[in-house]
Amino acid sequence: MAKPSFVRQNSADLRDAYASAGVDIASGAEAVARYKDLTSAWKHAAQLEEIGGFGGLFELPGDASKALVASTDGVGTKVLIAAHLRRYPMVGSDLVNHCVNDILVLNATPLFFLDYLALGKLDPQVAAEIVRGCYEACRKNDCALLGGETAEMPDLYDPSDFDLAGTIVGIVDRASIPKPEDVRAGDAIVGLPSKGLHTNGYTLARKLIAPSEYDAAFNGATFAEALLAEHPSYLKAVRAIQSVARVKAMAHITGGGLIENVPRTLPPRLKAIFEQVRWTVPPLLQELCKRAELQHDERYRIFNMGIGYTIVVPLEDAQAALNAASGAKVVGWIEERIKEEAQVLVRPVR
Amino acid sequence: MAKPSFVRQNSADLRDAYASAGVDIASGAEAVARYKDLTSAWKHAAQLEEIGGFGGLFELPGDASKALVASTDGVGTKVLIAAHLRRYPMVGSDLVNHCVNDILVLNATPLFFLDYLALGKLDPQVAAEIVRGCYEACRKNDCALLGGETAEMPDLYDPSDFDLAGTIVGIVDRASIPKPEDVRAGDAIVGLPSKGLHTNGYTLARKLIAPSEYDAAFNGATFAEALLAEHPSYLKAVRAIQSVARVKAMAHITGGGLIENVPRTLPPRLKAIFEQVRWTVPPLLQELCKRAELQHDERYRIFNMGIGYTIVVPLEDAQAALNAASGAKVVGWIEERIKEEAQVLVRPVR
Repeated sequence: MAKPSFVRQNSADLRDAYASAGVDIASGAEAVARYKDLTSAWKHAAQLEEIGGFGGLFELPGDASKALVASTDGVGTKVLIAAHLRRYPMVGSDLVNHCVNDILVLNATPLFFLDYLALGKLDPQVAAEIVRGCYEACRKNDCALLGGETAEMPDLYDPSDFDLAGTIVGIVDRASIPKPEDVRAGDAIVGLPSKGLHTNGYTLARKLIAPSEYDAAFNGATFAEALLAEHPSYLKAVRAIQSVARVKAMAHITGGGLIENVPRTLPPRLKAIFEQVRWTVPPLLQELCKRAELQHDERYRIFNMGIGYTIVVPLEDAQAALNAASGAKVVGWIEERIKEEAQVLVRPVR
Repeated sequence: MAKPSFVRQNSADLRDAYASAGVDIASGAEAVARYKDLTSAWKHAAQLEEIGGFGGLFELPGDASKALVASTDGVGTKVLIAAHLRRYPMVGSDLVNHCVNDILVLNATPLFFLDYLALGKLDPQVAAEIVRGCYEACRKNDCALLGGETAEMPDLYDPSDFDLAGTIVGIVDRASIPKPEDVRAGDAIVGLPSKGLHTNGYTLARKLIAPSEYDAAFNGATFAEALLAEHPSYLKAVRAIQSVARVKAMAHITGGGLIENVPRTLPPRLKAIFEQVRWTVPPLLQELCKRAELQHDERYRIFNMGIGYTIVVPLEDAQAALNAASGAKVVGWIEERIKEEAQVLVRPVR
């Protein structure tokens, strides 16, 4: 799924692989460019400069040392699989966790969340299941579920279809927002494991795994289980790591994968090197790459490939970071970048 | 369109008229009840009690005398008419203005807004037109357009279709939030005029006016012009009125009309009496009521019937209020309510 926002970059490289799934990534990039252009004329006085674009920053009224951080996101066409399988709460928690992780990149702590749920036919039980998923994830992240909107639109959605989006608002001490310029060559990149697709790549995944296969055995469970694996919140793991390690930069690995998300919080003079041998790619992602015959770089742009969140720390803090969060691994490091070199390089397993 | 939120009440009375348009209002009410039930177990410590439910209230970090006010909304199936006619920016401004008005009921001043735009096919020019509408309305309301999400989902939406939702966050001095208990029998209700359907009632309206009629002459223009009439922001008018009159309660007249929205900020012991003779119903709404053969009460539940926003002021302040805002009229008054009486009564023109 192309997910351009004011800042989300999509490259044209994937045009072929994704276009065959019906998503035009070049259009996404063009939309982003147009948004930037048309919104450059005026900014609100309290609107702060974005860093990496995982969330918008707005000076906290009454305290210029703090900022509110806001982000809107959807769960993409994962909703179609959930609707097909009638498994609902998980998409609610996926969405909340996705939003929590987005603003966590700016070191923000969640304050509140609001959902937007649009359905072809409003089945109160289905709607309540989805909102329950949002509510429970909000509670786990100590984030208020402050409101929401449920709309029944029979002429826009098929009767069993729905769309789900949400907006989160958090808060951060401005001095504690990670600064790209603090990152140095030699820093380690700690990766937190993903559980599957999270909320990206579903338009392609659904072309590769037909609904008739959902119940088929896969990796000790079924394709359905693998496809609906939770998008986890990394809030607790990141806070644990921050208590023992100096965190210089973070990235939430969503649409665009490691290749497009990691550079968003790196200075242009540095690059990130990942070594695939250092972590395991979830079986579902391996299967999807194989079926789609994706090239190496394509894999790391479309899917998270097993890394849900990255954290740059000084090398000497890396071991403490790994001890603090279960599943955390050193997955790569920072190097000087030479001119036009790619800013992310993933070394394959030999 | 049924638009239940945690608080938005929908009555079952409209079941027949709306069900024929494919929207089940009873389901909306049931969903709201389920949301309330499932979210009652836990609230965030900074979450404040809602008043009327036009926006969620959250204590401003660092200053308990203030609150952030947040609301999420969509533009409903007005998007289908906009898509059909390829007229896009207006739905963006409609959405922003709708959100501004919702939190204005709690006297909140907008801080920032984020949009969610989902399309079947991402035409960058179309997406940019919609976002431009959001941006321009944000600017007029001095509200930052802080971010957004654009998602291309070819399997969820038809190629020319899209959905649009948004979230606004504003701020208010808690002491200045209108208190239902301040309202007295004898207070006047000042109405600010609507320009048309605003963003409600489109699922029914589209059943009554077929696309083949959009270009037909109507009221000096076309049906298309009338159907796409702007949902205005009432922020400036309300601020002007507040500078000369004591405002005790307000309501944004959206889905549910005068009948369901006005009681949301009234105490149960009082009722609102409206006299239809005091204002003019826009020609499009007259035409829709006639075509649908709507009963009197149905009209005032499905459509705004010409009143977009209501403001309760002491009778002695009413004239000053009218002088302060162009188009404002005294449209009714507050009376004591007897037991089980309806809380809103609209007296028809004789």
